[in-house]
Amino acid sequence: MSNPRAAILIIGDEILSGRTREGNAWYLAGELTRIGIDLQEIRVVGDDHATIRGAVQALSGAHDHLFTSGGIGPTHDDITADAVADAFGAPISVRDDARALLAAHYAARGVEFNEARQRMARIPDGATLIDNPVSVAPGFTIGNCHVMAGVPNVFQAMVASVLPTLTGGAPLLSQSLRVQMPEGVVAAPLGALAAEYPDLSMGSYPYSQDGVPGTNLVVRGQDAARIDAAMTRLHALFGATA
Amino acid sequence: MSNPRAAILIIGDEILSGRTREGNAWYLAGELTRIGIDLQEIRVVGDDHATIRGAVQALSGAHDHLFTSGGIGPTHDDITADAVADAFGAPISVRDDARALLAAHYAARGVEFNEARQRMARIPDGATLIDNPVSVAPGFTIGNCHVMAGVPNVFQAMVASVLPTLTGGAPLLSQSLRVQMPEGVVAAPLGALAAEYPDLSMGSYPYSQDGVPGTNLVVRGQDAARIDAAMTRLHALFGATA
Repeated sequence: MSNPRAAILIIGDEILSGRTREGNAWYLAGELTRIGIDLQEIRVVGDDHATIRGAVQALSGAHDHLFTSGGIGPTHDDITADAVADAFGAPISVRDDARALLAAHYAARGVEFNEARQRMARIPDGATLIDNPVSVAPGFTIGNCHVMAGVPNVFQAMVASVLPTLTGGAPLLSQSLRVQMPEGVVAAPLGALAAEYPDLSMGSYPYSQDGVPGTNLVVRGQDAARIDAAMTRLHALFGATA
Repeated sequence: MSNPRAAILIIGDEILSGRTREGNAWYLAGELTRIGIDLQEIRVVGDDHATIRGAVQALSGAHDHLFTSGGIGPTHDDITADAVADAFGAPISVRDDARALLAAHYAARGVEFNEARQRMARIPDGATLIDNPVSVAPGFTIGNCHVMAGVPNVFQAMVASVLPTLTGGAPLLSQSLRVQMPEGVVAAPLGALAAEYPDLSMGSYPYSQDGVPGTNLVVRGQDAARIDAAMTRLHALFGATA
């Protein structure tokens, strides 16, 4: 039985301009690996309605799950909720349940619940709210699309709210071996071993330390015993030269 | 006259598994902004021939330039060159010019130029080599697609080789203002100002420092005088509260 497949869509001009180094995809990639959901693609697009709608339709159609990050705040450039609603053909407006959450939050702090903040209660019809224990303004799930904030600590809190509701598969396990040999020496025996273990993925990642080239070998798969067997062979081929 | 448009394709299972935090797209995004090439999309896919081929065709077809990173080393999982050749319908084999570069490099160091290393001389017919002053194995440009290494210092060296050969446009300029007000307060006046300056992009990025919420406002565009004018208005609206 194969694992569920997923994509991540990151939304924001600040990533494409180079202003911000994206880290939410990296965080979620690790979490998905842990629970056995196979991440197939990450895509980053800007704050443009038609572009977001098109990416949501393409990625939600091609995968079991789509996770988005960014563009659900109170300002004019926060257009993700409307674009996602459009992608699913769902009406969107300020929804009572989300408005009530935010109204209580601001009332408790004596802060005005103004029109901009009410924008964060715009939720598509039929969507389920995603809990935001950090700053209350919720994300939402519509169809197979999980819409979350871009601020890293809020994103991580929403991921923690969503992932337990999903059915994962066999976690992707990995082991690695660091060898003080250049990739060009490792390549042939590694390739031969990889051909013997078609159910595993074997990656090689060159590094250079104090001018000496080395290679990190990583074996990934879902069967711990098979990975153990492959690692034994790797140790025999290259030794442990960490 | 509008700027050239570009996409970045990052190739590697190690990104999708969460093992590696990608940084090449972030680096190149900043460089493209500097020379006036508009980055429209970043995509990350795994080490799969058909997936890479499909992404190369989609992204090179929809943009003036496509930059790829990863998968051009000597090991069995380095399949980018073949997939890109396939995407452009070009034959690929070990090419004499690339082989000569590598042969001289290894000969000078007394290192065997074995079959795995010769794999790095596989270059599609009709492609132009991209200089690699770090570790010699070249990248290449075929059509509008610039194929570069994934190792960060090699990637950056190849970017430095390629960018001067491209014609950019008006650089994307930006100025920012840090205000100690939550995004929900800034949102309405910022949105009204953004509507007055449709030629500029105004972004707002919330932060929290010692529990006090604030917002970074960023104005982007190609006309320095217009950005200055907008910043004067922003200062008048929100003051300088850094």
